[in-house]
Order: sequence, then structure tokens, then C-alpha cells
Amino acid sequence: MGHSTRSWQALVMAMGTLVLLRHGESVWNAENLFTGWVDVALSEKGAVEARRGGELLAAAGLLPDVLHTSVLRRAIQTANLALDVADRHWIPVRRDWRLNERHYGALQGKNKKQTLEEFGEEQFMLWRRSYDVPPPPIELGSEFSQDGDARYAGIDAPRTECLKDVVARLLPYWESAIVPDLRAGKTVLVAAHGNSLRALVKHLDNISGADIAGLNIPTGIPLRYDLDDDLAPLKAGGEYLDPEEAAKAAAAVANQGR
Amino acid sequence: MGHSTRSWQALVMAMGTLVLLRHGESVWNAENLFTGWVDVALSEKGAVEARRGGELLAAAGLLPDVLHTSVLRRAIQTANLALDVADRHWIPVRRDWRLNERHYGALQGKNKKQTLEEFGEEQFMLWRRSYDVPPPPIELGSEFSQDGDARYAGIDAPRTECLKDVVARLLPYWESAIVPDLRAGKTVLVAAHGNSLRALVKHLDNISGADIAGLNIPTGIPLRYDLDDDLAPLKAGGEYLDPEEAAKAAAAVANQGR
Repeated sequence: MGHSTRSWQALVMAMGTLVLLRHGESVWNAENLFTGWVDVALSEKGAVEARRGGELLAAAGLLPDVLHTSVLRRAIQTANLALDVADRHWIPVRRDWRLNERHYGALQGKNKKQTLEEFGEEQFMLWRRSYDVPPPPIELGSEFSQDGDARYAGIDAPRTECLKDVVARLLPYWESAIVPDLRAGKTVLVAAHGNSLRALVKHLDNISGADIAGLNIPTGIPLRYDLDDDLAPLKAGGEYLDPEEAAKAAAAVANQGR
Repeated sequence: MGHSTRSWQALVMAMGTLVLLRHGESVWNAENLFTGWVDVALSEKGAVEARRGGELLAAAGLLPDVLHTSVLRRAIQTANLALDVADRHWIPVRRDWRLNERHYGALQGKNKKQTLEEFGEEQFMLWRRSYDVPPPPIELGSEFSQDGDARYAGIDAPRTECLKDVVARLLPYWESAIVPDLRAGKTVLVAAHGNSLRALVKHLDNISGADIAGLNIPTGIPLRYDLDDDLAPLKAGGEYLDPEEAAKAAAAVANQGR
């Protein structure tokens, strides 16, 4: 067997596994408020979801070698709880704002139902589900703005974002920080948010801006992607560690819209 | 003012602050068992101690820029809880086995009182408090041995340690990982264990092997060291954020021996 064949095999062997985990319910999810970059904690229900995510990882023998999280408490707590349950609390960690939830602009801290009533369904859905229409920017110095927050010192932090903006700021981190871990053959856990994970999945599965709005990643259920040498998923959409529960969660979201 | 004077001032300004935090009660502390490298969780009392440590950091405005922990759950959980309370959960983290508790060898998992009765007070105290007498090594493959544990893959993990051994394996990490953070002007939190912190304090305060046994660092009370350019403490022994509570804890330990 020639040298080039062996090299190719070595490369295939070396490609790691990506595991996505969306944080569970936060105290603001429970209160139906737009959260974005506001740094709220998990609710008790969210902590239960996180531990269940860790049990699924352990049961599947899918043991992360390295963790990437946002700089937001609900993703960090989710990872801490899940990894503790899976006995992987000791793995290396990187945190970066580029994995944060979408910045919700002036809507941060507002009640979703009241916002819907105030602005009407069309505008409301544009802000929530369009690919490239951001909400109005948040006012600097206002209650739920992040200006002055030490964790964003030295970065040009957004004051609002659409999903397209999230893709644009996430991809440099994907390329520079996560891909090298995958190429080193590691099992990489990314604990993040509905929209940062949606942005990542859009990239991985090459989903259009029009279609990505329809994709909802359930909370607390690890989503596994095995990738080929070009970092394309071997199976489109990946595989949930609890597919039945994931299907139920997707159906529940679809029914919310009726 | 000459150039060299300004450079000297810049160097002084840049030296960071070291904060040591010993984890609180673990479930095995509560059961009076030798723990060492066995990876037990905090007890509920230990979790309360950790959160209290975070409150002390926040109240003092002593906000860590970076965290170093061992790879043991009780130190990791202590740091997670304390930093969450202090709103610093998002800082960079490094974990290393060189910050682990002393390996307790064949004593790991044994009851302290039974060990005292079995071996007598002299031998018992030698193992607990001598500088250079390790307990017998743990048997490979036995219940409380760490061989096969993925977190120690690729390292020449000890099977027993005396405090001198802890100093020897800790100092390379201090020099290569912690000192650069301090020289960069950071506030560095080290969340670790009775003996790894004792080893670090021995080095910082230049305490003899004979005297270090008498030093007990209380749990859950952050200990602050401001350092000069040569990394010598500006105040020998540092300063506890709650000196009254620290003095009480020290007195309690002294009375245990009577």
C-alpha cells in the first residue's frame, strides 16, 4: 500500500467528533423575557436538563476531551453540570464571546408577549426569525446593555445582532479555535445557545439563510456530528443522543406557532 | 526622570495579585477518610463554604482575571461556585494535576481514626505531617488507585507522595503557568487543596520543611498575596479576606491536636 493511502487513512482517523449542547431553561426563559447577552442563571429545571445532558454523554460513552463555551453563565453552568455528571469536569476549557447568544438589541429584558402586542406579529417574527433583520440597537448605559462589562473589554461588542451577524462573528472562532481541536482528533463539546448553535449548524450543514429559521435545536440533548476531512457532516443534521426526546421537542416548538 | 526609572515603575505596576482558595468540606472529609487523589465531590457544607469564598472576593473587589485549579472535582466545584457568586464565572481557566492534593498512597480511602489505631500515633503523624516521609505506595489496580484514569494519561503519576514531592511537582507549574499570569499584571486565583497550597506557601514565604507542617490554611477563605518583582510577598503569610474567621479556624485546628 502506497504512502499516500496511509496518510489519507491517518487523516481520517485523526478527525474528531463535535458535540453541541444547548443550555436548558434560564430564569428569564421561565419568565418569557428576551435575554440575548444579559447574563442570567439557569433555572432549577435548566440545571436538571444540564445534568440529563451529562447522563446522555456518559451513557453513550461520548466523552469530551475539550470544552468550548460562551462567556454567559447559562452555557457555563450547563457545561459544568453536564461534565461533572459525565466525570469530565477536569478537561481543558475555553470560553469566548463569539459563542454567545445573539445580542437581542433593544429587546433585551423585554417581555416577549408584550413586545408581540406592541409591535405586531409581522415585525415580531422578523426580529425573531429573519436572517438579516436585527432589532433596534440597545441604548448605551441602559439597564440591560453590556457596555462597561469587563468580559467585553477590548472587543468591539455589538449592540444588536441578526442571525447573519452571529454567523459572521462565530466563524472566525470556529476556524481558529474549534477546528484545530477537531483536526487533533479530539471530541469537542460546544456548550452554547439557540442562535450561536443555529449559526454553527447552518455552516456545517450548509443551510440557507431562508431555511435556518425553521431549525430549532432542543435544549439539554447533546447533538453529535461526525465530520469528514473537509469538516462536512458524515450525516446531515448530526445525531441526537436522545432522538425520541429531540423529535418531541421539535414537534412542541412547531405546535407553538399554531 | 530617566527612562530606567519609568521602566522600573512599569514593572512594579504590572505585578499581579495572587489569591489562594482551599476547597471546603468534601463528602470524604465529612466521613473522616483519607482522600488524596480520589475524586470526591464537595459536601453541601463545602458548597456553602465555596459560595462564601466568592462573596468575600466580591466584597473585597478582588476580582480574578484568570483561574488555575487542580483536576480534582472538589477544587473545580469550589472555583465554579465562588466565581459564579463573584460574577467572574467567565474568566479563562487552566487545570493541571500539579495542583492536585498530595497523593496519599495506600492510605487513600482509609478511615483516619482506624488508621491511627492500626499504626499508632507516631507513624500516623509522620505520614500526615512529616515533610519527607510518604505513606506506602497504593497498589495498582486497587479500588482507590488512579491508574487507568484518562486525566493522567501520558504523565508519570505518583503512587504516593510526601509534601516534599508535592513541592517538587508543583513548582514547575508555578513557574511556567502561574508566574507568567502574575507578571502580566493579572489577579490570579488558585483554587486547590490543603497540601498543594501548603507547598506553594512554603515556597512563597520561604518556610522550612520542619516548620511547614505547622501551617494550616483554612478552607473557603481567600488568602491574598501581593508580590514584589522577585515574587516575594510584600507581607509574609499574605492576608486573609476574613482574618477573624481564619484565626478561629487556625485555633480550632490547633485544639484538635490536644
